This record gives sequence, C-alpha cells and structure tokens, in this order.
Amino acid sequence: MADPLRFHFDFLSPYAYLAWKALPDLAARHDRPIEAVPVLLAALLHHHGNVGPAEVPAKRAYAFKDCLRHAHRMGVTLIPPPTHPFRPLLPLRICTLEMAPDTRHTLVSAFFDRAWAGGGGLEDTDAIDQIAGSHGVDHAVCRASEPTAKAVLRAHTERAIGAGVFGVPSVVVDDELFWGLDSFGHLDRHLAGDRPELDAHLSRWNGLSATATRTR
Amino acid sequence: MADPLRFHFDFLSPYAYLAWKALPDLAARHDRPIEAVPVLLAALLHHHGNVGPAEVPAKRAYAFKDCLRHAHRMGVTLIPPPTHPFRPLLPLRICTLEMAPDTRHTLVSAFFDRAWAGGGGLEDTDAIDQIAGSHGVDHAVCRASEPTAKAVLRAHTERAIGAGVFGVPSVVVDDELFWGLDSFGHLDRHLAGDRPELDAHLSRWNGLSATATRTR
Repeated sequence: MADPLRFHFDFLSPYAYLAWKALPDLAARHDRPIEAVPVLLAALLHHHGNVGPAEVPAKRAYAFKDCLRHAHRMGVTLIPPPTHPFRPLLPLRICTLEMAPDTRHTLVSAFFDRAWAGGGGLEDTDAIDQIAGSHGVDHAVCRASEPTAKAVLRAHTERAIGAGVFGVPSVVVDDELFWGLDSFGHLDRHLAGDRPELDAHLSRWNGLSATATRTR
Repeated sequence: MADPLRFHFDFLSPYAYLAWKALPDLAARHDRPIEAVPVLLAALLHHHGNVGPAEVPAKRAYAFKDCLRHAHRMGVTLIPPPTHPFRPLLPLRICTLEMAPDTRHTLVSAFFDRAWAGGGGLEDTDAIDQIAGSHGVDHAVCRASEPTAKAVLRAHTERAIGAGVFGVPSVVVDDELFWGLDSFGHLDRHLAGDRPELDAHLSRWNGLSATATRTR
C-alpha cells in the first residue's frame, strides 16, 4: 500500500487549516491515504529555538494577509477565531484518541472549521465535547485529560521532530518532508514521480562552514 | 509611470537569488520596472527579534532542499558558495553606489551568480572589485567603505523595516508587501489586477487578543 500523506498540524495555524482544505484533492489525484498527525507547534518551536510567525509583529501582520490571499485564491472561507494565539491542547489531544480513520478525518475538519471558518473557536470545553460526541467520540474531554492522551500527543510531537519537522503544516511521505502550504507544489510533483536527485547537492550544502555568525 | 517592483534582497539568501532569476519575466509580463534594493538581512532579523532559517538546523537543512527543489522546477543552476553564512556587507554596499539602473541590475546579477551559481563566493575583495570595475563601477571596494555607502545601506534597511519588511526576498509594490519566492503567485495575481479586498478582514485580525502565550 502506498505510503500515506502524514499531515502534521496544530489548530493554531491558519496555514495548516488552508493546507487541510487543499489536501484531499491532492491525495485523491495521487491515490494516497491521508493520516492526520496532531502535534504541538509550541513544543516544536521550543525544541528548535525557533520563533513562530505570530511572535514577530511584522511577520504576524504579513502572515494574516498572506493567508487571506491564499483563501481568496482557493475560494475557502477564512475567519479568525475569537482569540489568537489560543490554547490548542485539548482539541489536539482529543484527535489522538482511538477512533476510526474516517472519524478522525471529519473530527479534525470540524475542529479546524470551528477555529478558522467562523465557528466560535476552540476554547469552549462544552462545545468541544459536544462536537466530539456528535462524531461518536464519547467522554472526549475527560479522556483527553488522562495521562495516556497527553503522552500520545507528546509522542507524536517527538516523532515529528525526529523526522525533521520544525513547523506546521508539514507533510511527511516517502521519508520526505514538505513544510507549509507553499510546499504543496513540490509535494504534487514528488507524488507525480518528479523527484530530482538531491543527495549529492545536499551533502555539499550540509558540510558548508560559516564565515559569519550573528550574535543574538 | 507604473510603480516599480522594489526587490529587497541580501546576497546571503538562496531564495533571494532564485527570486531574482524569476523576477524579470514577471516584471516584463506586467510591464513594471525592477528596482533592486540591497538590505542587510541580519539587521532585519535583529530589529524584529526574528530567527533566520539558517539559524535553526532543521530549518536550514529543509531550506537547502526546498531551494534545490525550486531550482530544479525553474531550471536554474544553484550551487552553494564556499561558506555560508558569509559576510555580505561589501557587495551589498557596492550595489548602493551611484550607477545607472541597468548597471545596477547586471551588477546585482553578477554578484548573485558569483554567490549561488558556482562563481567562487563573495568574500574575495579583489574579485569583487574586479567584477564591479568590469561593470564600469570604479574604485568600488574603496568607495563602498566610505561612511556614505554605509549610511545608504542602513537607510535602505530602515526604510524597508518601515514598509513592513522582515525578511528577504521581499517585493514592495503599490504599497503592498510580498515576502518570499513563494509569494510570487500572489504578486503575479496582484499585478494582473486580482486584488481581494482585505482591509475589513485585516482590521479584525489585527485586533485579536491572545489567550495563550509562549514563554521563551
């Protein structure tokens, strides 16, 4: 069976929401299953000593505009949640609970829409529990607060870091990483079999030494 | 006369090199002049408290691969310089000296090719002086070390920050910012007159408050 498109996401990211909207068409055209992998963006940033786009005011302003441009191009509704950044832990943990792949897919969609399609956001615990319940995931909030669910989200995030993931959305497929909605063109070509031989180049690049460093 | 495409760049960035290769076709199709604006990426990062892609090992490795994928798609030669990051100050300052627009364009191209098309890099002062001289820019290294040239590069960088620029490459045109090679699709649509009304959306986004912050 073909390797799935492992879609790493955090509900915080409007780029992840837009990419989630674009993914089904891409997957269908290349006959690949989708596997939704919740990860905690804050943990990725912390691990890598990186700064998130929402943490640099000028970049935050630009990212919002860039997302609206993408939404316009894609014909996708994009309405910000009541607050941002918000705490995404609970819905992320719920999405790691045991359930059928189809259920997970529609639940991820429902949470994404509640965050980014004018649905009222993801910080109302009762609403989140109700959404999960309407997808057949009972006692979701309660179960997501158990140590097991916490450990699964942590494990997802750590495995993602091991695969080179440093931000969201990131698709990992065939041991290749594609970061960001903007990488979907590359991903599309990869899935179509257009795979440039990069290893010789990369080994040269990765061996480069610096003659300038920035003090921070 | 139509507003020019103000292309903000630093020779350090392979994305800026690739975008510089893509720009003439885009500009010609929409009948816009190109204005090359050297800026110091390190100063942008410092001002914004941002972290450059080459400063996060996982992101650096990914960025190299992403650039090679773009180069493959575009049919552009991309060979890393002898060292990276390197000190880009001297060639950037030379590109701010007084010269005809056409000369500046070809000189920027020559320096970019020396950095990213297997040309031996930009840290050999004699070679840099010779390249500038062959474009009719005499005593380039000497003049670029004068306070005036230093002040012009600083002024370019500060004006860019004022326009919302936080990274390179960035194109500013019609008071709009387009960051990164990946934004050229948006830029193309903008120049073709496809300009979504974003102001109402953006004012809502920019007024969002946070319910989560990350401690660093």
